[in-house]
Amino acid sequence: MIPVAVIGASGYTGLELVKILSQHPEFELVYLATSEGGATLQELHPALEKVVSMPVEKADAAAVAQVAEIAFLALPHKTAMGFAAELLERGVKVVDLSADYRLRLDTYEAHYCPHIDRGHLEEAVYGLPEFYREKIRKSRLVANPGCYPTASLLGLLPFVPHLMPDAPIFIDAKSGVSGAGKKLSETTHYVTINENIFAYNPVSHRHAPEIAEKIDDLYVTQREVLFVPHLIPVTRGMLCSLYMQLENEVDPIEVLSDLYADEPFVRIRTEPVDIKSVAGTNFCDIYAKASGRSLFISSAIDNLLRGASSQAVVNANILCGFDETLGIPKYAYVP
Amino acid sequence: MIPVAVIGASGYTGLELVKILSQHPEFELVYLATSEGGATLQELHPALEKVVSMPVEKADAAAVAQVAEIAFLALPHKTAMGFAAELLERGVKVVDLSADYRLRLDTYEAHYCPHIDRGHLEEAVYGLPEFYREKIRKSRLVANPGCYPTASLLGLLPFVPHLMPDAPIFIDAKSGVSGAGKKLSETTHYVTINENIFAYNPVSHRHAPEIAEKIDDLYVTQREVLFVPHLIPVTRGMLCSLYMQLENEVDPIEVLSDLYADEPFVRIRTEPVDIKSVAGTNFCDIYAKASGRSLFISSAIDNLLRGASSQAVVNANILCGFDETLGIPKYAYVP
Amino acid sequence: MIPVAVIGASGYTGLELVKILSQHPEFELVYLATSEGGATLQELHPALEKVVSMPVEKADAAAVAQVAEIAFLALPHKTAMGFAAELLERGVKVVDLSADYRLRLDTYEAHYCPHIDRGHLEEAVYGLPEFYREKIRKSRLVANPGCYPTASLLGLLPFVPHLMPDAPIFIDAKSGVSGAGKKLSETTHYVTINENIFAYNPVSHRHAPEIAEKIDDLYVTQREVLFVPHLIPVTRGMLCSLYMQLENEVDPIEVLSDLYADEPFVRIRTEPVDIKSVAGTNFCDIYAKASGRSLFISSAIDNLLRGASSQAVVNANILCGFDETLGIPKYAYVP
Amino acid sequence: MIPVAVIGASGYTGLELVKILSQHPEFELVYLATSEGGATLQELHPALEKVVSMPVEKADAAAVAQVAEIAFLALPHKTAMGFAAELLERGVKVVDLSADYRLRLDTYEAHYCPHIDRGHLEEAVYGLPEFYREKIRKSRLVANPGCYPTASLLGLLPFVPHLMPDAPIFIDAKSGVSGAGKKLSETTHYVTINENIFAYNPVSHRHAPEIAEKIDDLYVTQREVLFVPHLIPVTRGMLCSLYMQLENEVDPIEVLSDLYADEPFVRIRTEPVDIKSVAGTNFCDIYAKASGRSLFISSAIDNLLRGASSQAVVNANILCGFDETLGIPKYAYVP
Repeated sequence: MIPVAVIGASGYTGLELVKILSQHPEFELVYLATSEGGATLQELHPALEKVVSMPVEKADAAAVAQVAEIAFLALPHKTAMGFAAELLERGVKVVDLSADYRLRLDTYEAHYCPHIDRGHLEEAVYGLPEFYREKIRKSRLVANPGCYPTASLLGLLPFVPHLMPDAPIFIDAKSGVSGAGKKLSETTHYVTINENIFAYNPVSHRHAPEIAEKIDDLYVTQREVLFVPHLIPVTRGMLCSLYMQLENEVDPIEVLSDLYADEPFVRIRTEPVDIKSVAGTNFCDIYAKASGRSLFISSAIDNLLRGASSQAVVNANILCGFDETLGIPKYAYVP
Repeated sequence: MIPVAVIGASGYTGLELVKILSQHPEFELVYLATSEGGATLQELHPALEKVVSMPVEKADAAAVAQVAEIAFLALPHKTAMGFAAELLERGVKVVDLSADYRLRLDTYEAHYCPHIDRGHLEEAVYGLPEFYREKIRKSRLVANPGCYPTASLLGLLPFVPHLMPDAPIFIDAKSGVSGAGKKLSETTHYVTINENIFAYNPVSHRHAPEIAEKIDDLYVTQREVLFVPHLIPVTRGMLCSLYMQLENEVDPIEVLSDLYADEPFVRIRTEPVDIKSVAGTNFCDIYAKASGRSLFISSAIDNLLRGASSQAVVNANILCGFDETLGIPKYAYVP
Repeated sequence: MIPVAVIGASGYTGLELVKILSQHPEFELVYLATSEGGATLQELHPALEKVVSMPVEKADAAAVAQVAEIAFLALPHKTAMGFAAELLERGVKVVDLSADYRLRLDTYEAHYCPHIDRGHLEEAVYGLPEFYREKIRKSRLVANPGCYPTASLLGLLPFVPHLMPDAPIFIDAKSGVSGAGKKLSETTHYVTINENIFAYNPVSHRHAPEIAEKIDDLYVTQREVLFVPHLIPVTRGMLCSLYMQLENEVDPIEVLSDLYADEPFVRIRTEPVDIKSVAGTNFCDIYAKASGRSLFISSAIDNLLRGASSQAVVNANILCGFDETLGIPKYAYVP
Repeated sequence: MIPVAVIGASGYTGLELVKILSQHPEFELVYLATSEGGATLQELHPALEKVVSMPVEKADAAAVAQVAEIAFLALPHKTAMGFAAELLERGVKVVDLSADYRLRLDTYEAHYCPHIDRGHLEEAVYGLPEFYREKIRKSRLVANPGCYPTASLLGLLPFVPHLMPDAPIFIDAKSGVSGAGKKLSETTHYVTINENIFAYNPVSHRHAPEIAEKIDDLYVTQREVLFVPHLIPVTRGMLCSLYMQLENEVDPIEVLSDLYADEPFVRIRTEPVDIKSVAGTNFCDIYAKASGRSLFISSAIDNLLRGASSQAVVNANILCGFDETLGIPKYAYVP
């Protein structure tokens, strides 16, 4: 068993990491920490009583390095890169769930803050397994993708070679409230979002450059991405509806199948996808339909799993040379 | 007081008509019917006990004509046109909430069924007050718009003159479950749609031609409309997110203001709109933001009111020469 | 028209007061304030744009007294009594929605804080119209009941004479989240309460003594009340399930009818009540069923209307000698 | 591995059985059937694509007997007993999730229908492991408890010796909508139950005699049980609030601990329980608080797991002499 650590155990993605890793056949969760320390696991997550029992430390890189070979960082951006640098220097491999290593330096600094670990940024690999599998295998620092980019990129990347060059890609994304994290805000107050739906940060959300950059990275082509996220009254799950213009008519199901037929965690659907069929799993379900040269793609994931924690463990599986499906949730919460 | 009738009292839009008309200062609700008859108003709508009390008839055109000057038809399409023809011939004005008089003959027959009242179809006026007010005033047969076209058209029509000619208009619509009516179906089963969201009839929903046709009707220009409706886990309300390409950069708030500043039932918002602020009212709230020549518009209505019953009463107000805000709900259900 | 003021305009009950009073045929809303001032009505409640437009002051008793005859206080307890005292001394009648004047001095101080307006406490009348109508008519200070006591008392009071003397009254109450107010808390975070239900403050909620005291006040008898509130994943509405033991078998519907048949805002139901039929209204719907000498009563109200704001306006109607149904919402939000 | 069959694969409990058994370390799911046959597993449950793949038969007892040693019956009552009889005669052990073997003959026939398998009824063991573990171990026919009785009995049984003899036990139960099954009904229509809550079959639900009979069975004492189920707007989970009168004051947490401290699937909580902490698991979380001699107990389970499918597999574990926690879900779906 490979000993692993989770830093950032108090939030939703931290909880999901604990749930997956404590059941994993090849990873042994040996170290758990929050930035502050001082709370037991049962206080942080009462649902784990009689399920998982282990101490929660105040995060400390040296202590991690003594016991763990891989660390999962479920920390806010900026905090994450400080910690990652220390871990890497001590020989611990890192799967970082924050935004800190996902972007090129200039893109990152334009949308987040000054980067304080430029050295490692260059070697970081983007952890979208279907497209970066080989690079992940050889890396020691994986930048786990954001939830919106995961769902969007898996839906649109197969079609990039077929798109009209100058037409924008429109992404209408709908996220469950858990995507906003545990922090209290007017937006996540039950009375605000129940029986409601609204766009937020339209056109200017910082996941848009993450999507555009990966298109460029993989296909060496620049596309305008107009990204509009919406908050919807569900706890869990994300649906991305993508609208594009094709250069030539294609059979979209065939395009998807060419890329994904053998992928263990992508399912091509012939009926529009829904989030209930993926909530609780690492699957990305994709549906596509064209009308002439206009293309509609619908892509669904669990925002906390495929959009964060289970994808992180898939990346760790790859990193370690394991079968990438090992210990990864596949059974949806349905009904 | 002008005596009015509601035919089709058992469904959600029928209930909303009863609620509005029984409080209206100039209309007197004198006749209420369902296709089948045989149930009291309290059986159909227990919430109306101690509020509204009147008999529910089995629908009969001759009986309507004896007591009412205007009839609101909240019937399924096809049933509606049979009934409307009989009423018009007896001198009763009709506000029809079905699809039967909304479209040109060929469009209608391509998407619904053979039309059995072609004579009146030609004189029907499309009941979107902001764009057809003068024609409504002179008509005796108003085709009340569908909920999706109402929200979509109010959002996009102001921009039609500014659009790139060949680019499609993408409409990502999200509707509450009441839009699917009272009929039981797997889709509207609580367990199916709670904590879920999915597209249905993507690209081929029959509200798309209704939208395209009105663009053509008002601007004599043909546009490709790619319309994808989604079902969301809310009872009431609709949000339409529209994605378009502009020919030139414009200030979208200015474009909206030019058309709507004085409209009593359109509100231009500087923050993204939500459905809670319009649920319970006849308002259409609109937000718009451009990024270069890409345009995002968000438009919110109450699907049963602005998308059906309250807009129908606005049309009747106009038909009768009343102030069109008379008796129309403006107070949202918030919180 | 009688000029009235609302102090505490920013919360949910303040919003409902504005909605009701701005449409009321005999009250004119002339003064609106919050504790802090400094925000426009549209900022506080964007849904009121193009509906109600008036300034929001920083609350000042002298200013109220200059323009209004009646003031509605939608303030936190303790703040309310300070303000009420000042208003009463200046000749303004007060309908107080807080807890400050609902209880006897000792009960209040045991469950809230030291009382700072004992002088007026003695003359305050409990604003449950069905049982205190005559006293309200003659008063100048009405203590509007809490939402839980309103639903509970209307359900159980008719049965007090029939109860087994020593058996406790068990109240299992379920409240929508708006009852917890606008303040952010972990409990009202969407992710916490969506798809969830739980009891809070079981057995020791401070609405229990309010209920017990009114039983004593009306029937001169002391009863043990075991009150357990639950939070449920709905925005609006409250259902109270009451469990009691009868001394003798009675026909519960008959008992209810004897008291309530002519009440405009109580509906006796022969099927179990639900909150959707009352949400948006001042109705209290009541159902009862006995099994031998065990009695189950189910009582439903809108927590913000019958449980707060619309009942407050009913009390003001009574105070002014108006028909108590004047301007009071009766149309439920259904569907 | 012991070969097992699931009969009744199309419903929610059938789906949960497939999910648990296909991951179980000692059971091999070899036979899957519905009453009608003719649909693939992916058609019945699209979420299982790329997860579980096996044929779905038309249910046939002889075919089951050829391949399986244990059969789980997730069939409607009446259908179940016909099938169970055939299986038992062929030497297949049965865990029946229907009501058919839960009750004494007279109780069953009074609340359901004439019993057609009286022979086996006598030997059936009630599958509540905490109280019938030893009998289950030796049986070949386990009657899996209903969801309401499971949550209610686990909460109240420890207190039976301490109850006032003549006072009724009041049970206010709240169930998620999945408890009503997949069948379409007005009650389970999203628009009906969303933003709503109501009692149904109050006082006369047929789970009440199941509860009363087990109290009698275990403590040889008869108690009046007043049972009122409510439907709540959540998909999954159940909370039972129990109200009782004690003969003497007791420390309720101590009473619970005496019985349950070492139970793997009961958690005694010091804060009121919620359904989110148990949804997705076989846990029953229990909280209790007394006020003098009045007692409140709150008990939470996942209605489809502890209330049906996972408890069924626990029973099969016991039947086979396995550790009863083998393959049983313990990780809640939170957040």
